Amino acid sequence: MLTGENIQAHLDQLTKPPGSLARLEDLAARLCQIQQTLRPATQPRRMVLFAGDHGVVESGVSAWSSDVTALMVRNICRGGAASAVFAKQSGTDLRLVNVGVKAKSPFDLITCESVAYRDACIRKGTRDLSQEPALTSAEFEEAWQVGVDEADRAVSEGMKIISCGEMGIGNTTPAACLAMLLADVPLEYAVGRGAGADDDILQRKRAIVADAAERVRDLSLQESIASVGGLEIVAMAGLMARAAESGLTVILDGYVTTASALIAERLQPGTVNNLIAAHLSAEPGHRLTLAALGLQPFLEWDMRLGEGTGALLLMPMLDAAAAMISNMATFADLGIPKEAET
Amino acid sequence: MLTGENIQAHLDQLTKPPGSLARLEDLAARLCQIQQTLRPATQPRRMVLFAGDHGVVESGVSAWSSDVTALMVRNICRGGAASAVFAKQSGTDLRLVNVGVKAKSPFDLITCESVAYRDACIRKGTRDLSQEPALTSAEFEEAWQVGVDEADRAVSEGMKIISCGEMGIGNTTPAACLAMLLADVPLEYAVGRGAGADDDILQRKRAIVADAAERVRDLSLQESIASVGGLEIVAMAGLMARAAESGLTVILDGYVTTASALIAERLQPGTVNNLIAAHLSAEPGHRLTLAALGLQPFLEWDMRLGEGTGALLLMPMLDAAAAMISNMATFADLGIPKEAET
Repeated sequence: MLTGENIQAHLDQLTKPPGSLARLEDLAARLCQIQQTLRPATQPRRMVLFAGDHGVVESGVSAWSSDVTALMVRNICRGGAASAVFAKQSGTDLRLVNVGVKAKSPFDLITCESVAYRDACIRKGTRDLSQEPALTSAEFEEAWQVGVDEADRAVSEGMKIISCGEMGIGNTTPAACLAMLLADVPLEYAVGRGAGADDDILQRKRAIVADAAERVRDLSLQESIASVGGLEIVAMAGLMARAAESGLTVILDGYVTTASALIAERLQPGTVNNLIAAHLSAEPGHRLTLAALGLQPFLEWDMRLGEGTGALLLMPMLDAAAAMISNMATFADLGIPKEAET
Repeated sequence: MLTGENIQAHLDQLTKPPGSLARLEDLAARLCQIQQTLRPATQPRRMVLFAGDHGVVESGVSAWSSDVTALMVRNICRGGAASAVFAKQSGTDLRLVNVGVKAKSPFDLITCESVAYRDACIRKGTRDLSQEPALTSAEFEEAWQVGVDEADRAVSEGMKIISCGEMGIGNTTPAACLAMLLADVPLEYAVGRGAGADDDILQRKRAIVADAAERVRDLSLQESIASVGGLEIVAMAGLMARAAESGLTVILDGYVTTASALIAERLQPGTVNNLIAAHLSAEPGHRLTLAALGLQPFLEWDMRLGEGTGALLLMPMLDAAAAMISNMATFADLGIPKEAET
């Protein structure tokens, strides 16, 4: 068993003032702790993006229409989206899994040129959570299983690092409900502007989230999550739970993926031990949901794009952290006493 | 002439909510502005590390002895130092230039195996700035010219990005003097713990810096800089001034390199227009010296190692920023109206 103390002792023998790489040392230590080695691996790695639509968009919670989800799925598959650009740049294998896109012409989606695309559509978008439960328990379980299968596939294909992200217009609304439900985040923090809500949309979104959180309060845990959830959100939770159980290192992206992490941690406690929080997004609830999981984000760049982009931007930092702890010389190698100040 | 408005207009046509990549968009915009293109280049690139010792170490301002500078130069050249590991990891060419190492056995230094090493030693360490001027005007000019030559070499070798860093035990003391002198940083911020000063050392360092800043107040600008400067600090200033003049993109590292940037900007106004601040170090004066230059750092990871490590960690982020603006699809490509919310 490699403890935090063992890891710190090794970091302090490397040829630098002790602690002088600060947060990068934290990142290296976290990798070592999860992988139980002083030579952590950061390749091969994969980003699995789950796409799904949200009935609640019909109630006016987003600046964008659900059609955009399908267009962006195509854009990701063709390599033109931010996620596809960053995945290529960082040497991260990219898969896109459709768990619930509402597209009128789903066949359009399979014109993927550069990204592995999987059609695992459970239903064409969730029900409107402001009117009725978004998902049934059966749909919840089906979505969860899609995520589990993706984790198993990553393990069988030898991945060392896995991350997941989402494409789903309207999905900060279910994320806000889940933040209230699972991390007691106050309404005014839970609800943000997502991909660009104006004041009118924000007000509507806030009222819908408040109502939904109230409505599900007396349901069972799984029923309440299904009632305000999203297909891609539940699939990501399934992926995280299974990937963590399998010993993979799991990189979190933004607010919506953190809602998935809250689900995973509640349904499979201990998942959080394998998570690394890549960044703090501009959504006001993100800091609180990360804190509820005991996670400290690495990049604070105010990003709010989703699609796993924050996680993908951290990938080269994981490489640097792993190279640092694996390849730096020690003071003993150099003939400098460890306590140079004595 | 590519203006900030042109660049922002292009960024807002890419398939993402406008502004949603936030600080990464700022980074891309800065690259575009400096290089005057919407397809900025981040390769090939080079880190030039300048090594030099400081007479003031004899007066007890550092937890480490000057011998460590030479040992670390060897460590860098052999690939075992953090800078060497990050340079390799990030695809950055690394050079080490000795402008003033005090090593007893300088021939040891030329056993460099993996890094280009240049011996341009001006004198074996500066004079003790607590007792007398650290450098003469002639030494100042010689050190500046070494930096200029390195910038010219980078240009002639086709580099698009250049950065410089330092190895020099004791060099946060001259950096603190320069922060007071050139950016009016108050003493209590200017002097920090460097590579690990304890309370006694910190108190001594503070008294020495206060005295030195007072002593040089009535000298000419160049004389005052020489009086409290360091050979590697002046060489970095020369590199920055010439690199900026030549149109290169210049990446700043931590507190000591920012002191060099203050020198460069004072002696060649406009240098700052080509600078990108990689990170905010743990030294308390760094935020204020960056602010004096009007620069916003990208990584806030509390690092304090020097050796260009903060700049090297930003390199993959430059790649991501450039790939984003160069390779992402536009809304027009996708058939989505730019103002999707209308």
